Amino acid sequence: MKLREKILRVLKDYDLANISIATLGSHSALNILKGAKDEGFETICICKKGETAVYRNFGVADKIIEVESFEELLKKDIQDLLKKQNAILIPHGSFNAYIGKLDALEVPLFGNRKLMEYETSREKQREWFRKANVRIPKEFKSPEEIDRLCIVKYQGAKGGRGYFLVSSPEEFRRKADRMIKNGLVGQKELENAEIQEYILGANVYFSFFYSPVNDRIELIAIDRRYEHVDGIGRIPAEEQLKLSLEPTYTIIGNFPVVLRESLLNQAFESAERIVEVSKEIAYPGMVGAFCIETIFNERAELFVFEISARIVAGTNVGIPSSPYSYILFGENMYMGRRIAREIKIAIEKGMVEELIY
Amino acid sequence: MKLREKILRVLKDYDLANISIATLGSHSALNILKGAKDEGFETICICKKGETAVYRNFGVADKIIEVESFEELLKKDIQDLLKKQNAILIPHGSFNAYIGKLDALEVPLFGNRKLMEYETSREKQREWFRKANVRIPKEFKSPEEIDRLCIVKYQGAKGGRGYFLVSSPEEFRRKADRMIKNGLVGQKELENAEIQEYILGANVYFSFFYSPVNDRIELIAIDRRYEHVDGIGRIPAEEQLKLSLEPTYTIIGNFPVVLRESLLNQAFESAERIVEVSKEIAYPGMVGAFCIETIFNERAELFVFEISARIVAGTNVGIPSSPYSYILFGENMYMGRRIAREIKIAIEKGMVEELIY
Amino acid sequence: MKLREKILRVLKDYDLANISIATLGSHSALNILKGAKDEGFETICICKKGETAVYRNFGVADKIIEVESFEELLKKDIQDLLKKQNAILIPHGSFNAYIGKLDALEVPLFGNRKLMEYETSREKQREWFRKANVRIPKEFKSPEEIDRLCIVKYQGAKGGRGYFLVSSPEEFRRKADRMIKNGLVGQKELENAEIQEYILGANVYFSFFYSPVNDRIELIAIDRRYEHVDGIGRIPAEEQLKLSLEPTYTIIGNFPVVLRESLLNQAFESAERIVEVSKEIAYPGMVGAFCIETIFNERAELFVFEISARIVAGTNVGIPSSPYSYILFGENMYMGRRIAREIKIAIEKGMVEELIY
Repeated sequence: MKLREKILRVLKDYDLANISIATLGSHSALNILKGAKDEGFETICICKKGETAVYRNFGVADKIIEVESFEELLKKDIQDLLKKQNAILIPHGSFNAYIGKLDALEVPLFGNRKLMEYETSREKQREWFRKANVRIPKEFKSPEEIDRLCIVKYQGAKGGRGYFLVSSPEEFRRKADRMIKNGLVGQKELENAEIQEYILGANVYFSFFYSPVNDRIELIAIDRRYEHVDGIGRIPAEEQLKLSLEPTYTIIGNFPVVLRESLLNQAFESAERIVEVSKEIAYPGMVGAFCIETIFNERAELFVFEISARIVAGTNVGIPSSPYSYILFGENMYMGRRIAREIKIAIEKGMVEELIY
Repeated sequence: MKLREKILRVLKDYDLANISIATLGSHSALNILKGAKDEGFETICICKKGETAVYRNFGVADKIIEVESFEELLKKDIQDLLKKQNAILIPHGSFNAYIGKLDALEVPLFGNRKLMEYETSREKQREWFRKANVRIPKEFKSPEEIDRLCIVKYQGAKGGRGYFLVSSPEEFRRKADRMIKNGLVGQKELENAEIQEYILGANVYFSFFYSPVNDRIELIAIDRRYEHVDGIGRIPAEEQLKLSLEPTYTIIGNFPVVLRESLLNQAFESAERIVEVSKEIAYPGMVGAFCIETIFNERAELFVFEISARIVAGTNVGIPSSPYSYILFGENMYMGRRIAREIKIAIEKGMVEELIY
Repeated sequence: MKLREKILRVLKDYDLANISIATLGSHSALNILKGAKDEGFETICICKKGETAVYRNFGVADKIIEVESFEELLKKDIQDLLKKQNAILIPHGSFNAYIGKLDALEVPLFGNRKLMEYETSREKQREWFRKANVRIPKEFKSPEEIDRLCIVKYQGAKGGRGYFLVSSPEEFRRKADRMIKNGLVGQKELENAEIQEYILGANVYFSFFYSPVNDRIELIAIDRRYEHVDGIGRIPAEEQLKLSLEPTYTIIGNFPVVLRESLLNQAFESAERIVEVSKEIAYPGMVGAFCIETIFNERAELFVFEISARIVAGTNVGIPSSPYSYILFGENMYMGRRIAREIKIAIEKGMVEELIY
């Protein structure tokens, strides 16, 4: 029996009047669990031992399951426990480490686990973008080809740590050596790194929601990441040159931002084509939260440089609502709540199986 | 018959119990139309063909009128259609291109179209500021006079594209040539450009509302623009010097911000004097939304460098409310809604003619 | 009779059914007074003559008391007036100038005035941090020891004006001379200045609330300051080097920000230990609003560099709610309101005396 069939069979045994919402205690769990509670669901938070304090403090979890490591999610006893609670799991960035192993997970996952796999491979993402005909930064196959400002990124979302800028093959070698020596990155990780043209401009992260229930793409929030590198803009050039600055792209948080309205079209068009292609590359295609990570150049042209087929942490800026979610819903609405709302309506309409994989 | 009289005659024929709110589908239309709906008005969005998707997606327009270009707003049939719907037009930044031609527009416009003309001329703005006795950056009449860091800006709000920094006559010539060669700006535009002292400091944009109904100035939101140039702060000086960076001031979006409370006084005092002078220079003076664009220097002294006598896009950060609008109203309040609220109260009080021109 | 006993005696005479909330008209008074009104209290704003306009405009004060200088708060007639109104004073940053003199103030103050004194001494703060075992930047006792990028800060919260960066003893002398010559700082202030290691990274300010009523630490808002120095990130390195840039750390405002969820633990743990130690160093320990000012380095390790044992202005970003206060309370909640809510519940529970000093 295929995985999706197994999961649908698990779902078939669920008591749909008593669905609970579960997630791992990390990343955007506060958002997800609060949203579930706002829509009336019971909530379960699977926490690492020693990391329960934040989730207890905010009071968003009706039940906390403590584990030694998140990998226990794949164990039979935890899965059985979740199934007994009629739990639908909401995946987020901390699930990525278990992608590939997810075949062992039979608990229904909101969204499409097959699309989440694209996050772990920059090559697969680029394929998706090319099929969707969205503008992307140039990729350099080897350090020797570097002829402009580039950023070196690793496979999988690792929180931006250890990314670095280079503008020549020589600089690549020098910086790569230093990164390895300082233990910020491993040799193999570096060999598999992507060398991506660095588009100078304004970073913008769009948190969209594709609703199978409404058959529409909704813009839930927009943010701009707050990274370690943002600290250098506050240091005068004169001082910077005296120091051996080692800024990296470690993510610390996110700022809310609104987009110039005439640029929204570009974002929606990209999102639509990405959703369209998702149906071809991974049945049943996009479901629920996804984020396109973009940069606008000096001509205000949008370049997509990454996609996440699940809730991203940046959407936290839009709790309890963002300008966009308010315009769309006229009430407090944020990604965690939007996910729970979709499940609630799908239960009423008898179409939950279309939301899970 | 004078224009204002014509407009008032149009208004006289309106069914005030069935006013609709209309605007062009761009800039801050989502804000304006959602606000109108929140206050119970019917809404009309005049969209360029091919640009309706965003407005349909957000569901803020009861009626969408498709046009080839926004200039059709001036055509008799569109105007007749709007009049039949008892439409009051809410102007925003995309109306600027038609300023000067607005004499052909007899549909009542919320605000004061004569004050909007000041936006197209930096010289007229400076006159206004001087009369209001607000602090402004020094202006250099010719490139030869440049003796400090300056920013070169074009006439009219063009979204900041092609603005550039210079600190000497020689640098002006070199960069101007490059801008022209790269097609970022035309020769004539450059000749009419303003060379403005660049105040180093923190940009702050104040979205005020002058209410004739309440006879008071209200602070609705504060933002800081997000521009292409913000990308350079994330590139180490060492890298910057290797590249020929061409940052421009293309606007991409806006960040919400709150002001140090002890500095609010300066903003309110400037706003009051600007409103006072508006009554002298363009009858009936300021009405509704306006924005003063400022920068605070190292002594936290406020410099005003631009004014817009209409809603600005930055106010979008305050949907559904900003800290300031919440303190003032104790409910969700944002510029589009504030405009609609003013019209609603004016209808009840029989003073709509005081809000339009 | 000791000061605390005197204050408790004043409180004993209060009509707890008619408590009013008072503060100085500055800093975060709009936040405090609006919050008090939202919870049903009468409000009093003590304003400097000529500075009442903003507070009248926002309509948050039921009564405005005009004074020549805030020091009049210590005068008997003003104190008597406040006592007659059953006023509880909410301290904020503008109270700091009177710290040390606060022994003359017998009006009940929300919070712990003894902990506020720590703000005026960086040495005392460091002691507190060391006892709490939180990570702090290295301190250099003399300019001669400077061996890395450092920031020079003055005693007391002075809004960041005149702070400067140095990376060698020579540079310290040169910049210090210039600061004095330009009148940005006095000789004595400079001698008492703290030379603090400058951690390159992302600044984050946490507005916490310690509730004696609920015996828990609550995260109410997170912000990142907007300072004069943020202006330099928008100037290309090439231009910066041509100029003698003099960025300073004058605070202009604050941006809302959300933190990467996996980093919240570090902030809560630091806050808990800081609260724990507060009980040892100043009876009855922390009460109500406090802020820990932090920076995350490239390994996302949190360094605490300052603490304020009272409401800070940055919490204004969270009006009417922040993502964190919404998750916790599920309704509009911000620091001013949280303070008033605590007082309201304490009145009901008969434990007001635990909230004041």
